Amino acid sequence: MEDPGQDLSHRFEADSVSRALALVGEKWSLLILREAFFGVRRYGQFARNLGIPRPTLSGRLRTLVDAGLLKRVPYATDPERHEYRLTRAGIDLFPSIVSLMRWGDEHLSGADGPPIVLRHDDCGEVADPFLACRACGGEIDAHNVAPERGAGFIRADGRAG
Amino acid sequence: MEDPGQDLSHRFEADSVSRALALVGEKWSLLILREAFFGVRRYGQFARNLGIPRPTLSGRLRTLVDAGLLKRVPYATDPERHEYRLTRAGIDLFPSIVSLMRWGDEHLSGADGPPIVLRHDDCGEVADPFLACRACGGEIDAHNVAPERGAGFIRADGRAG
Repeated sequence: MEDPGQDLSHRFEADSVSRALALVGEKWSLLILREAFFGVRRYGQFARNLGIPRPTLSGRLRTLVDAGLLKRVPYATDPERHEYRLTRAGIDLFPSIVSLMRWGDEHLSGADGPPIVLRHDDCGEVADPFLACRACGGEIDAHNVAPERGAGFIRADGRAG
Repeated sequence: MEDPGQDLSHRFEADSVSRALALVGEKWSLLILREAFFGVRRYGQFARNLGIPRPTLSGRLRTLVDAGLLKRVPYATDPERHEYRLTRAGIDLFPSIVSLMRWGDEHLSGADGPPIVLRHDDCGEVADPFLACRACGGEIDAHNVAPERGAGFIRADGRAG
C-alpha cells in the first residue's frame, strides 16, 4: 500500500466497509449466512446446527431479512410454513465469508488442519482460494495495491471529494 | 453448493469462521485494521481518521495486540512512544476486508459509485477483485464449490469426524 495519504484517510462515514459491517459484523448473523451457503433453509436446521438460542435466531433471521440478505419464502400451507433463502446480496457475501474461513484455517486452526474444505466443481480440486485481479489474473494482497478515491468518495467534511 | 448434508452441518464449535469472528467481527476492530492496511500506525491518526472515542480506540488496540493482529513497536524514547504495526496474521486479513469492501460497493454504495478503489501495482489497472482457485485460476462462488470435511473436522459431539 502507498503512504498514508492525508487525503485518503478521510472518508469513513460513507465508506463501504462500515456499511457492510453494520449488517454482517455480528457473529450469529454471519454464522447463519454461512449455514445458508451450505444449503440450510429451515428454522429448525439453523437452530440445531448452530446451537443458537431460539429468541436470538428469530431476531437475527428477521434482521437479515430486513437487511435484504435473506428472503422469507412459504413452502407449505395449512399451517403456513416459511423457509429462508439467500438473496442476490446474500449470495454475493460468499467471497467475504470464504476469505474469513481461510484466514481462520491459516491462523486459528490447530495442528489438525481446516475443519472444512471447499472442492471446486470446475477443476475438481480442493480449492485454495485467493483474491485475484480481474484485469490480469494476478494475486491481490496488502502490498501490491494502492487505495485511490473512487467516484463515490466523500470527504470527512461531507463535501464530495 | 451441494445439498445440506447432515454430516457437514455438525462441526460448528470448532469452525474457523466462528473463531475468526470472535476476533474481528466487531466494527471498530475491523475499521482499525483497514486503517492499518492504508498505512496508519499512530494512535492519533487512528483517532482522527475514524472519529472513534479514545477509550474505545485504546481498548480495541489492546484487544488487537492481544489477538496477535497488531504489534506495539517503540518508535521514540524520552518520552517513549509506540506505534501499531500489522503482524503476519493481521496482513493476511486483507482479502477478507477487501471482499467486504467490494460487497459494500456493489450492494450499499449509492449511485455515486465506490468511495475507494484499489489500483493493482502489477498491472496498473483499478482492481476488480474476485475469489479465484489456485489450482485452475477460475472464479470461486457460492454455486461452484461443495463443502467437505477437512482434516480438522470435529463433530458436534466433540469426537473427530
